[in-house]
Parts: sequence; structure tokens; C-alpha cells
Amino acid sequence: MNVMVESFGLKPNQEEDATLAVLQAIEHCRGIGGATLTFAEGEYHFWPDKAVERQYYVSNHDQEKTRKIAFPLLGMTGFTLDGQGATFIMHGLTTPFVIDGSSDIALKNFAIDYKRPTLSQGMVVHADAAGFAVSIPDDYPYAVRGGELIAIGEGWEEPVTGIIVMDPRTKASKFRSGDSLMWDGYKEGRVEAIGEGLVRWSGFTHFAPERGDVLLLQAGHRDCPGIFITDSRDVSIAFVDLHASAGMGVIAQKSENLRLSAFNVTPRPGSGRLFSASADACHFVNCKGFIEIENCLFENQMDDPCNVHGIYAQIAERRGDELLCRLVHPQQRGVEVLGEGDRVRLIRRDSLLPFFETTVASVRRINAEYMLVELEARLPADIRGGDAIENLSWTPNLHIHGCVAKANRARGFLITTSGDVLFEDNFVCTPGSALKLSGDANYWFESGALRSVAIRNNVFEDCNYGYPFWGKGTIDIDPEIEKPESYEGYYHSGIVIENNLFRTFHPVLLSGHSVDGLSFRDNDIERTSTYPKPNHLPYAVDLKACDNVEIDGNRVAGGVLTCRINGNEAAQPLVRAES
Amino acid sequence: MNVMVESFGLKPNQEEDATLAVLQAIEHCRGIGGATLTFAEGEYHFWPDKAVERQYYVSNHDQEKTRKIAFPLLGMTGFTLDGQGATFIMHGLTTPFVIDGSSDIALKNFAIDYKRPTLSQGMVVHADAAGFAVSIPDDYPYAVRGGELIAIGEGWEEPVTGIIVMDPRTKASKFRSGDSLMWDGYKEGRVEAIGEGLVRWSGFTHFAPERGDVLLLQAGHRDCPGIFITDSRDVSIAFVDLHASAGMGVIAQKSENLRLSAFNVTPRPGSGRLFSASADACHFVNCKGFIEIENCLFENQMDDPCNVHGIYAQIAERRGDELLCRLVHPQQRGVEVLGEGDRVRLIRRDSLLPFFETTVASVRRINAEYMLVELEARLPADIRGGDAIENLSWTPNLHIHGCVAKANRARGFLITTSGDVLFEDNFVCTPGSALKLSGDANYWFESGALRSVAIRNNVFEDCNYGYPFWGKGTIDIDPEIEKPESYEGYYHSGIVIENNLFRTFHPVLLSGHSVDGLSFRDNDIERTSTYPKPNHLPYAVDLKACDNVEIDGNRVAGGVLTCRINGNEAAQPLVRAES
Repeated sequence: MNVMVESFGLKPNQEEDATLAVLQAIEHCRGIGGATLTFAEGEYHFWPDKAVERQYYVSNHDQEKTRKIAFPLLGMTGFTLDGQGATFIMHGLTTPFVIDGSSDIALKNFAIDYKRPTLSQGMVVHADAAGFAVSIPDDYPYAVRGGELIAIGEGWEEPVTGIIVMDPRTKASKFRSGDSLMWDGYKEGRVEAIGEGLVRWSGFTHFAPERGDVLLLQAGHRDCPGIFITDSRDVSIAFVDLHASAGMGVIAQKSENLRLSAFNVTPRPGSGRLFSASADACHFVNCKGFIEIENCLFENQMDDPCNVHGIYAQIAERRGDELLCRLVHPQQRGVEVLGEGDRVRLIRRDSLLPFFETTVASVRRINAEYMLVELEARLPADIRGGDAIENLSWTPNLHIHGCVAKANRARGFLITTSGDVLFEDNFVCTPGSALKLSGDANYWFESGALRSVAIRNNVFEDCNYGYPFWGKGTIDIDPEIEKPESYEGYYHSGIVIENNLFRTFHPVLLSGHSVDGLSFRDNDIERTSTYPKPNHLPYAVDLKACDNVEIDGNRVAGGVLTCRINGNEAAQPLVRAES
Repeated sequence: MNVMVESFGLKPNQEEDATLAVLQAIEHCRGIGGATLTFAEGEYHFWPDKAVERQYYVSNHDQEKTRKIAFPLLGMTGFTLDGQGATFIMHGLTTPFVIDGSSDIALKNFAIDYKRPTLSQGMVVHADAAGFAVSIPDDYPYAVRGGELIAIGEGWEEPVTGIIVMDPRTKASKFRSGDSLMWDGYKEGRVEAIGEGLVRWSGFTHFAPERGDVLLLQAGHRDCPGIFITDSRDVSIAFVDLHASAGMGVIAQKSENLRLSAFNVTPRPGSGRLFSASADACHFVNCKGFIEIENCLFENQMDDPCNVHGIYAQIAERRGDELLCRLVHPQQRGVEVLGEGDRVRLIRRDSLLPFFETTVASVRRINAEYMLVELEARLPADIRGGDAIENLSWTPNLHIHGCVAKANRARGFLITTSGDVLFEDNFVCTPGSALKLSGDANYWFESGALRSVAIRNNVFEDCNYGYPFWGKGTIDIDPEIEKPESYEGYYHSGIVIENNLFRTFHPVLLSGHSVDGLSFRDNDIERTSTYPKPNHLPYAVDLKACDNVEIDGNRVAGGVLTCRINGNEAAQPLVRAES
């Protein structure tokens, strides 16, 4: 059944707040089930004041926040939103979409943008040995106050805490700039107002922007993901452009069967912006069933295009027959990582290797950080504080195909799931590694081990141009194990990398450790001179603590494939070099 | 059935965190119903890390907070906690007790304290024309940083934002000091570290502390009320001493039939502290049934001893047949003020007078600030934005007797309820008015109109020693109506003040307006010389816009009772003066 939003008194291209009318339309659709809510093409504006609010612990976002939601899709069964070309413009700190406790949801044919994003943008108009002057257009109101540059938004003010340097020719993160002017690197500098719309930074020692460089000024928090999906299933997002967000583009947790088709995270056309989402383009935590990501464009977002992982809960203490478990990373707190009936295994904090497997009998949540977990099997005697527990039931199959990822900050696709992974027909040009296959139970606590991965028919073009930031090679397999050689057993297994085209200035194609069963075969490698080649990186393939490695059939244009496997240079399987 | 906390492995006077053992004991008691949980005498310690958390909108506290709760009494039916003389010592920002969705709850025989309260205390060791030096003991760690005095707690650091000046002889707020060094008054000053445990303030122009004065240093927020009661009924708290809290002593909302007996808000004996709770001793919002407060001691808390009120929701906008209503005051947001079936009336924002009465058909909460309300009767045509809606169903009867209130900051008892109010046999010596009977739909939004109040057999001793702060007389009836004379009708009605003893240096016994039916009779008035008498206050009783006023039978030792009623000096009813 088709429901037009106009019937709730809402017309496009008005200045009024659409929030209450949209809420009324959504509630109407909830009542009838299976409805399609359609918009007329044009702009609609949303302010937070009268928006539905919910407190959510959103994984990998700033936690313990009440989110004001423009489109609260809460407890919906069977609902399609067809924007028909509409653009939804958020004001202030409004979260565009939340899909919670819902199923059979389709979102399509619209764009999301912010009137005043939390990111600001300026251009270097003068640079000298001591510093650089930046022109900031009126679109990004600011003040210099108390030694800080304060970004001024609609109802918010936040200090700028970092600069990302963009190359105006490539419209991407500038060669080797990386995070030089972010985090502690940013704190080195001093800022002052030097004229109308002009500020000057000085005192940086790690990187010197040049005249004409575009600077992205980071401020605020991960408060407002574009689309937050939790406790839902069968959700599809198609032909949706996300031009800005104060957080990730899509973040899904504890959800099942999710499809992104032509979900494009990209700067607003004609805006001159070189940024889109303020964090990852899409991110999936503790999901199951399938995740399909097809024909998506992920560009100019301020973190990775995609991350799929679970969460390791740390075992803080054994209390009788129960385990007191802890979500250590502050941005994971409050996320539901274990549930009754879930299959789990215990792993060691140092080796990340499993030593016990059973089923969860009950979970009593104490707070966002701690829970008491009862397991069905009798607890093993040798549990140590710091060991971790991993959920094996909530691990999705993942199919990523036909996507383009480029011009962002940081890495490419971060994948840790024990489901079947197929990564094919993608084009990746990221300043860090194109693929990072990690796992960690000590800092990021992102699980879990891979067991079936095919990476094929992709083009990896000039990745790692942000080096030495964000990864050791185009494909970086680096589970966080301090001495992987010292353990019997391997973290990952079953990784096949085949029939890809590596067109790259960077010499390292594959770096990795702790894999049992790794094939790198039938790939084409072309060297480019897009950027200067880094020195001191002699090995195109550099692996340690791996077993059952196959390197075969790769074609290197004008050169050889230099390999080091478990300490031996080109020692094992056939390495063919063509000239 | 008696349950001893020892059976959960918890012994008194240990340094360990009691939180998880107490949680286990409470869950055990929830399962059996009607249980009494007993503690052995001694100290028990509670940290927030492993405490149950809940997000609550606590009225008149800092909102949108997740509270970590030492004693989470959630959904309990029939439960008694007998501390048997135990002291529960909180660490960090732990909320001691939450009673939520519970009934038949009794708490008794224990004390609540904080290892490091959010308040700090120091003593003036030197004072000169420019400023004063203060010695701060090791109990109150601090740092001077960035031009601010930072109070350092267990897991928190907060800037000091105000000073309350205490008289070491009276152990109460110093004569006329009031809020001179609080809020904007505090911002005038500069602070510097001048030695080990020594800081110096200078630059204040409103009040000059003297050598020997004790200073209370306010920091932090209203995060942790001592006992928070919500959506509960039949709760009694008896023989409980509250020595510190980062918020009010008891705050109850949307609850029914509450009794405080010998609930004593008082500094920890032997601690040298001149403070107890950091805000009101007890506070009741949108309650019903009865509230009984008997034999309680409320001293040295940093706000009023008691406040009983409802909340006016502002009418923001009429949307078809619904009213978009708004909770305007930030500390009231999120509190449930209207429910289906509640009897309500609409009042004007200027006169505060009612113009329509009906019943709530439905309430749809949008966020903490806004809700859509449907009423059973057809909406009147003359509703104006800014008018307010008042809940008549949730108004309690109130009996306060045998209580002592003194040495706090601010006023005495603030009462606005249309239930029967009996205030008798109390002793009040507060720096502001002993009783403030107000009502306001423009700033505080505290409802509602009084209709049956008896104030009798109390001793009011030297109140208003903080003047010109906090009230115009010992009893101050001041609904916030700009020109009460200009309306037909009166906000309050039925107030009888009789047989009280006023022993006071301050000349104003009763100030008020907008009352229909006000008796001030058979009271004894003794003048004291405790403090200098303020000038320019010629009327002991000063009333305007009142009707049916009776002033009779009052006995003034050594003087006359000077009155002004509706602009006429001693013009109406008999005023007897005895010499």
C-alpha cells in the first residue's frame, strides 16, 4: 500500500521542520504493515528539537548518548521508504535513520545531507617555513577562542581536533600526509585568527601543507550515524546517497541479512566539499545471516569504507560458576555481544587461539561494561583473567562486489568473520591497505578468525599512498599476536587471493602472519610511478608464521615477485617472474 | 524471611567492592518476595565500575545521565533492607539507592556517605582587602589548573563553580553571605595556588570572607541522588542518615504513599564537615497518595530541606486535535508528567489561573522535551501558546511534623500541591524563608495551587539570615504572577497559619499575594537580636491581591504587628498588639 507523505501536510522545498509530519506518516505506516511511504522529489529539513529520541549504545560511536532521530523506524514489520529523489537535510545533531527491532525494511532513492556538517573545509592560501594560512568559507562558521579553533554549528560548538590534508588534484588524502596533523600531531600546532575568514596555524613539525591544499577540519564526536540498524533483520538500502554524517554512514549491530546496493557515501555534488561521512562508510558488528554490499561508492569519508567484525568480551574474573565479562573498548560498551543459546569459544589473550567451546546458558547485564555469563558446559580450570570470549553464532557471510573505495582517510575493507567471505570485482584506491584482515583481544577487541575468504577479480590501484600510516601493504593480514611464531596453531585460515590486478607504486602487495592456508595466485601486478616508491621494502609478499602457503601464477609486468615466507626469501612454492 | 548479606560472602569493614555481592543478595530477595535483607554493623564500600546502570531522567537533577547504582531496587515487591547500623560508603559517582517500579519497600537503620564527596571544604587562614587565603585539607584533593580550582575525586575531576561561606560558630551559612560567591558572583574571582594545601582567591566584590570562616566549595553536577524513587508506591525510609550525596538526599517522582521517618540529612559525625547533601534534603515531584515526613533532621545540605510540587507542561502548539506540550525547564525534561486517564486543567501563563478542565485520552512521548497529548474533551478555541497544563491526579496530601531544618543553603519548605497540607511541630532556622508557597509556569514550571494548608505549632527561629537572598519573609507566598492585582481570581486558597512561635530578628513574618482565604492567627512573635535587623521592611505581614484575610489573636512580645493588606496599612481584620 502506497502512502504519500504529502497527505500528512508535508511538501518538498519548504523551510519548515518536517520532523513531526514524518513521524506521523511513519506511525501511520506502522499501523498498516507492508506500506511504502513515498516522498515527492525535493528537499526536506529536519531539526532535532521535536525528533523522537532514544538512548543507544552504538558500536564504534560515542556511547551513552541520547540520539534525536529524524526517521525512527522502531518495531516496524514490512516497510519501504521510497524517496523518489528526495534529499533529507539534517540540522544540528540529528541522527537521520534508526532501524530498531524491525524486519523487512527497504530504504531507497534518496540522499542524506547536513546543512552544517561537523567537518569544516578550508584552503591553504599561503604557506611558509613557520606555518600556513587557511581561508575558511562562510559555509563553515567558526571562532578562534581560548587558543582553539571552534567549529560553530546549528546548536553545537566543538573545538577542531585535527586536520586531514587533501590534494586538490586527486581530491584524495595527500601523499604521505596521513594522520600527521591529527590527534597528538594536531596538538603541536597553534592557531590564530588573522583576518575575516582567515586563520593561521604554526608550530607543526610532522607535515607542511602547501598553498592550494584543501584542509578538512575535524570537530565533534561520532554522535549521529547516517543509518543505524540494530536488532533487525532483512534490511536493504538501495540508491541512497549519503553526503555527510556525524559518525558512520551505516552502522549495523546484532542484525541479520543486510544488503547495501548503490549506497553511495560521497560528497554533495556541486558543494566543493572533499568530505562525506565523518567516519567509516559502513560498519557491521555482531551480525549474522548475510551481508551483501554491491555497487557502492565509498569516497571521501573520514575513516575506512567498510568494517565487518564481532566483539571479544574480556574475561575479567571467574565468580563461582559464572564469568564476569567485560567490554573493554569504550566504543563497544553497551553492545549486546552474547545472548542465551549463542555458541561461544574462549580464546587466549596472547595467542588469540581457542581453548574451549560451549553454549551460553544465561547473560545478566550489569552495566554497559560488565555482564555475568553462565555457560552450559562446566568451566575449564585454566581460565585466566584477560582471556576472551567470542560469539560464533553471530558471524555473517559477506559478499562485497562491484564497489569503488577511494579518497578516504585510513584503510580499505576490514574483515574479520568466520562466515564465507567473497570480495570480488571491486576497485580500491585507499591511502592505507585495501584489505586489512586482523583480529585483536587486547586493544580493539575485534573478532573473529577468518576461515573462508576469496579475494578475486579486484583492481587495487596505488593503495597505501598514506604510508607510513595505515598498513604494511595492499593486503595486510595482521592479527594482533605479539609473537605468532611462538604458538602452535594459526589465527586465520583459508584465504585465497586470485586473479586480481595490482596497479601500484607501493612495493608490498601482501603482508601477513598466522594463517593456515593462504593462496596468492594468478594475480597481475603492474608497477606505477604515481608516487615515489618507498625504500627498504624489498618483499612484495612478506609472510611469517604461516602454513600451507601457495604463491603461484602471478604475472609481474617488468619485474619479479620478491617473496619472504617464514623467514625464507622466495624459498617455497613456485614464484614465476615474467619480464 | 530474613536474608543475611553475609551469606553472599560479604563481611563488614573490608576494603573490597561490595557491589556484586549486594546485587546478588537483592536478586535473591526479589525472587522470594517479602524478604528482609540484613547487614552486620560496620562499613561497606561501593564503587561504580560493576554497579547496575540505568538511564533516568531524574527531576531537578542533571538529566540524560546513566546512573551507576549500588542498591538497584528495581521491580521489587515487598522488600525490607535493615542496615542494623551499617554505613554504606560510596566511591566515585555511585548513586546509592534507586527504587523503581517497586512497592512495599522499607529502608532502615543505616547511613550513606561518600569517601570523597563532590563538595570540598576549606578554612580561611588569612584575609585582606584584596582577597583571602584558604587551607584545604588532604581529604579534598584538588589542583589549580588553567585558572580554575579543580576538585579531584575518585574517577572524576570537576572545576569548583561556587563558594558557600559558613560561620564556624553557628556551623550555618554566614549572615548575609547567601549566594554572593556562587554562580556569576564566583566568576568574578581569580584563584591561585600559594602553597601546599593553600589557595588564594581575589577579585570578589560582593562578599569578603573573614579569617576563620569555613568555605564549602561546590563542584560537579546533580548526578547521584542519595535515594531516587520513581514509579513506586508504599515506600518508607526510617532511621537513615545521609551524610553526603552528589544531588538530593531523596528525590521521588511519579510515586505514591511515601514516608520519611528520622531520615536525617546531616554531616558525618566527627568529620568536621559542614555539609551534607549537595542539593535539597528531600524533593517530591508528581507524586500522589500521601507524603509523610516526620522527625527528620535536615541540616547543612546545599539547597532546600524539602520541596513538594508538580510540573506544568507548556503548551507549545495546537496540532489538530492534539496539543504539542513541552517540558521547558531542562531539569524537568523526561519526567512523566501526564498519563492516560489523568485529570488535568489548562492555565494561563500570565495569571496562572485555570480556564479548562478535562481528562487525558492519550500521551505520545516524542522526546524528553516534547509530547503529543490528546484530551477527552474537545479543545477550547482560546488556547494560546505558552499556556500550561497541570496534572490534578498526581497531587499528594502532605504531612510534615516533628522535623528540624537548619544551617542549609537557601530556603526551607517549598510546597505546591492541591492535596491537604499539614505542617506542624517543626523547628525551622533557614537562611531563606522557612516556607515558600509559590507556583510558576514561566521559569521553574512548578505546579500547583494550594487549597488546604495548615501551618501550626511550629517554631520559626531567626529565618532569612541569608537576606537579601532567598525570600521576602519567614513565610513567603509568592506565585510568579507579574500583576496579581490585575486578575479576577486567586492562585492559592485556604491557608491557615496559627499557633506558631516566630522568634526572629527579621521583621517580615508573612509576605504574600494571590490567596483567597488566608488566616494568620494566634501566633506568638518574639523579636531577637541574633543578627542586625534589616531596614526598610516596615510590615510584619505584607499581603496584596488577597481576599478573605484573617489576622487575629497574634501576640507580639514588646511590639505591635504592623500589617499591610492589599495596600492598606493594618486596615482590615483585627490586629492585636500586646506590649
